[in-house]
Amino acid sequence: MTARLAQRLRLIDQALERSLQPADGSPKPLDEAMRYCVLSSGKRFRPLLCLGGCEAAGGDPKQALAAACAIELIHTYSLVHDDLPAMDDADERRGRPSCHRKFGEALAILVGDALLTRAFELLSRNGTPNILSILRTVAQASGASGLIGGQVLDLGDKGQGTRDKVKILEETAKRKTGALITASVVAGGLAGQASAATLSRLRGFGQRLGLAFQLKDDLHDGDGVVRALGREAVDQRARHLIAAGERSLRPFGQRAWLLRELSTWLTAS
Amino acid sequence: MTARLAQRLRLIDQALERSLQPADGSPKPLDEAMRYCVLSSGKRFRPLLCLGGCEAAGGDPKQALAAACAIELIHTYSLVHDDLPAMDDADERRGRPSCHRKFGEALAILVGDALLTRAFELLSRNGTPNILSILRTVAQASGASGLIGGQVLDLGDKGQGTRDKVKILEETAKRKTGALITASVVAGGLAGQASAATLSRLRGFGQRLGLAFQLKDDLHDGDGVVRALGREAVDQRARHLIAAGERSLRPFGQRAWLLRELSTWLTAS
Repeated sequence: MTARLAQRLRLIDQALERSLQPADGSPKPLDEAMRYCVLSSGKRFRPLLCLGGCEAAGGDPKQALAAACAIELIHTYSLVHDDLPAMDDADERRGRPSCHRKFGEALAILVGDALLTRAFELLSRNGTPNILSILRTVAQASGASGLIGGQVLDLGDKGQGTRDKVKILEETAKRKTGALITASVVAGGLAGQASAATLSRLRGFGQRLGLAFQLKDDLHDGDGVVRALGREAVDQRARHLIAAGERSLRPFGQRAWLLRELSTWLTAS
Repeated sequence: MTARLAQRLRLIDQALERSLQPADGSPKPLDEAMRYCVLSSGKRFRPLLCLGGCEAAGGDPKQALAAACAIELIHTYSLVHDDLPAMDDADERRGRPSCHRKFGEALAILVGDALLTRAFELLSRNGTPNILSILRTVAQASGASGLIGGQVLDLGDKGQGTRDKVKILEETAKRKTGALITASVVAGGLAGQASAATLSRLRGFGQRLGLAFQLKDDLHDGDGVVRALGREAVDQRARHLIAAGERSLRPFGQRAWLLRELSTWLTAS
């Protein structure tokens, strides 16, 4: 990891720590569980993308910290709810007991709710000029046509023929993972006061990277499109998407260094 | 019900209907379940309070419709999650099968998440000058020190002595019910561009009404403070709070008609 990437990670971790300071009158077990889920570990891929989008647009990464934290809180809430017995019933997350295994199912539901709410509270306290556009971008990516919609599709029947299956799986991936990854880059651009043309370029990069991210994830787990298409084809498609994404960053020159490093990290992952 | 109260209710129901139009690409079962939970019935007490706060501040009730809808969506999400098997395990809600009984537990978790997210999306699309203050007010009342904090306290041990028990129950009520009811009135005032003095008066009214609402609720269910203090004492305390709230509305004159009607409705309930 380069020194400047490490410095950006430090910015994010400090901001997350601040965002999870106990709220006035907040019950202690709730605060503790929220911190357990967010501060434990995590690659911080989305918040780094957010800072990267801001820098590519010529902004100071600090302008994008509220959006970056809000997105990481939303990502974490979605994992907490996804791990619940009624959903994936996962006992572990990031090598430690999942939230409901550690704190019980009722509290885990409320921890997810509280993280989602805290994300929007964080944004509503931010004075960035584009904050309403950032709020809209993040809310839309997290909602029924984005993240949550993807989770619902994930619950649904996948027992169709291979071709339909792949289409449904890609559609699910686009929403479940792609929407929030794309929103990370775009929200960063908005925080950096990007022009409409720059935002559109950042969105294109985010969409390619988001789909590649899900494909890489499927390659690790061996499920999703991998079972339908085979490892070779999926790996090739991911590489193709990442390369196209990197080409689209050329006009940014050196300012896209962080987006490029994250793209490289994904290739190697 | 007076004609003008019925007209305000119609405004709210139309706005809720619009807010639950299927989002672009949103899965059909999710849309259907969100509509089932919100559009079925409900007294619309909180959104009416929101319009009432706006009118008391001299605003047009339509200015407060986005806030009113957002608050009703948040109220509904909290009921959907509260009804889950890991929480209250309620089979019915408003005389019909609860969300998870009708659509399954996994979808019910996601319906709650989607309603909460839609609430903030709705606010982020609104152009009212005070919208960021409204967002902050609503987010704070819904979060760890408000609604969700109250739910967490509700999960906790209530097996202390009577005096501590009453204190804890009132603290829980203040957050679980009181915070969002207070925020409804205040957000309405903000939408109506109320002065700081008016907001403070509206907040005081909301706090009294919120606590009275929870006490009335406990009187119906026979649990909470009723078991600890007895019906007589709880009923007297609720009446006292409502009367004090009504007195605090005097300076608003006729403009507080809706807040007064809601207060009267609560007395009779």
